Amino acid sequence: MINIINGGVTAPQGFRAAGIESGLKNNGKKDLAVVVSDEIASSAGVFTKNIIKGHSLQLTMNNIKNEKAGGIVINSGNANACVGKVGEDDALEMCNIAAKTLGYKMEEILIGSTGVIGMPLNMDAIRKGIKLAGERLSYNKGNEAAEAIMTTDILKKEIALEFEIDGKKVRVGGMAKGSGMIHPNMATMIGIITTDVKIQSHLLQKILFNAVQRTFNRVSVDGDTSVCDMVICLANGMSKTSEIIADSDEYMVLQDAFMQVCEYLARLIAKDGEGATKLIEICVKGAIDQETAYKIAVSVAKSPLVKTAIFGEDANWGRIITAAGYSGAIFDPNTIDIYIGGIKVCSNGCALYFDEKLASSVLKEDEVMIIIDLQMGNASDRMWTCDFSYDYIKINGSYRS
Amino acid sequence: MINIINGGVTAPQGFRAAGIESGLKNNGKKDLAVVVSDEIASSAGVFTKNIIKGHSLQLTMNNIKNEKAGGIVINSGNANACVGKVGEDDALEMCNIAAKTLGYKMEEILIGSTGVIGMPLNMDAIRKGIKLAGERLSYNKGNEAAEAIMTTDILKKEIALEFEIDGKKVRVGGMAKGSGMIHPNMATMIGIITTDVKIQSHLLQKILFNAVQRTFNRVSVDGDTSVCDMVICLANGMSKTSEIIADSDEYMVLQDAFMQVCEYLARLIAKDGEGATKLIEICVKGAIDQETAYKIAVSVAKSPLVKTAIFGEDANWGRIITAAGYSGAIFDPNTIDIYIGGIKVCSNGCALYFDEKLASSVLKEDEVMIIIDLQMGNASDRMWTCDFSYDYIKINGSYRS
Repeated sequence: MINIINGGVTAPQGFRAAGIESGLKNNGKKDLAVVVSDEIASSAGVFTKNIIKGHSLQLTMNNIKNEKAGGIVINSGNANACVGKVGEDDALEMCNIAAKTLGYKMEEILIGSTGVIGMPLNMDAIRKGIKLAGERLSYNKGNEAAEAIMTTDILKKEIALEFEIDGKKVRVGGMAKGSGMIHPNMATMIGIITTDVKIQSHLLQKILFNAVQRTFNRVSVDGDTSVCDMVICLANGMSKTSEIIADSDEYMVLQDAFMQVCEYLARLIAKDGEGATKLIEICVKGAIDQETAYKIAVSVAKSPLVKTAIFGEDANWGRIITAAGYSGAIFDPNTIDIYIGGIKVCSNGCALYFDEKLASSVLKEDEVMIIIDLQMGNASDRMWTCDFSYDYIKINGSYRS
Repeated sequence: MINIINGGVTAPQGFRAAGIESGLKNNGKKDLAVVVSDEIASSAGVFTKNIIKGHSLQLTMNNIKNEKAGGIVINSGNANACVGKVGEDDALEMCNIAAKTLGYKMEEILIGSTGVIGMPLNMDAIRKGIKLAGERLSYNKGNEAAEAIMTTDILKKEIALEFEIDGKKVRVGGMAKGSGMIHPNMATMIGIITTDVKIQSHLLQKILFNAVQRTFNRVSVDGDTSVCDMVICLANGMSKTSEIIADSDEYMVLQDAFMQVCEYLARLIAKDGEGATKLIEICVKGAIDQETAYKIAVSVAKSPLVKTAIFGEDANWGRIITAAGYSGAIFDPNTIDIYIGGIKVCSNGCALYFDEKLASSVLKEDEVMIIIDLQMGNASDRMWTCDFSYDYIKINGSYRS
């Protein structure tokens, strides 16, 4: 039995956090988050597949190989990417300051940077910021850390779950940021998950990877993926419950908890897509295989024409079937059914009479479900995306200014 | 020596055309175009790769196999797609009326429909429209036909070229429509090319295919491809010049002329992208192979973040390098150079100081060139796209209403 509780990354035992204004952003908002475990923890991470990788992210990809970490520092406002040697040096220094401040070795620190590409980090702000955050660390400031990693995000994204092992309570907490440049593999997103269960790093990695595949990698805001995307995780064992071993019941529950944490955060990212007015869930079912279902879901989720139609509250299913048709997936055009918000609009590939007014009222909801049933097999997949609005253009036409 | 002359599809000898208001559109605009050759012509066609195909397009894909055609009918306002048996019947009837009106057999007629998906054609309008157009056919009304195939297009798209064979003048004329739902393979576009040279259908097909690959299939407005896309071509031999045989000098000149006609029309489609304020040309060079260059060009051309940045006149090259990085192409992030409007903004994968004001002034131009030089090999490719503006959202949020 998994329950949702208040809190985020500091909900599990032995985790402190802080989120502060270091001055990296020029709008006075929080821009630096620190999360630290009281004891060294098993670590795991999933990283962007973009061939271009930020300097901070590269350092963390390397440190994650040690399978142990104690502290995390994330800055927003600057991606520390594509600036060459100075970026590598800055990542190293950031790591070094964090190690000293948090009482860990450099190789036990994970760092992340998100924001504008191609501008050197303001290291004065970073130096002072990490020290300041170190002084402010608290067992109940997960929410401040969640705020400090936001860039164009409007919604703060955090969640905590609780369940039992050996009759004792254990917890999983998570936070994420992400709003634009969002697409599978992965988005301009950073996610941090903490837990007080005891588990080896390679199992934690497996659980994290599975959860990310079915959640964060099923979100598309604009089809762009960034150079700084990562989801990292620390499991510190401080619940003092038995170690979780592979394929045990506890392992399954932990997998389930990770899935829930990641799904909650992933849906929030789609809902908070830049300029979004609606969360769109695209479910493809009846596919011959998984790949077919995935290809169609991604294609529909990425289509600007589908996304603008939903913004316009127009049940223009022609664009949905069109996006399915150019997805590269093979299917029979004569068996496809489409539902928008529960209303069947296309049957066996053909137009169906439906009440346009009812459809338009369904499209006024905050969340819109599109179901594409290929009626050919049993495989299914889903994606979360959002509509494309005037504000998306506004936000992204002037991001750097 | 190939010269541009006035006109479009009626510029070559023996072609008449008309464009009329049949009543398919409810705004009183032209919506039905007829093009007819005085003598039966060699035909060729390239069609959408979308798995969903409009009923009119399916009929034309079938008729093109006969290698001979005399008349073309295109309606705008309704795609005649995804309506089942009634759509097939309507396509047949449209073809039948055209055959009678134009004096050809049904299998010598090519038809196309473009517009809203999932609504039956208004056949009363089609019947009267084809007959009316038949009465209005003229040797100098190519421009009216070009107007009648427009949907959300703002610019009329036509061109004609002239060159010599056997010391006699021959001509190639073309028209196209396309504005939204535009992406390689192919776009919501229809193109018609006429010529008075004499050439066999299989050679014409080869020339058309080559030209389309490097032109129409290099345009992306929004990454969507439609169910009605086609480029069809008639060569009626009425210049009375010698038949063009494979790989002859005349063959090369004709290939060149087709390339020019298609490039002109393709650029116009990108420039006329829904809501577009700028034409963007993306050139990838120095790639190890063609596929690498193509993947990167497509990825950058499709990126909503790149397109909104250009709309905002912001030289945000971080988004360009990011889109290259997630394109799936393999390249060395440390040798990539990027130029925006002639200004070098990224050298060997690193930020370069550049004058932001100068960059912003370059981005105020109507056409913006982005060059991505991988410095790894000799392969290159290019794509045309446009910026993403508020008007794109406006046009597509309310397309059916």
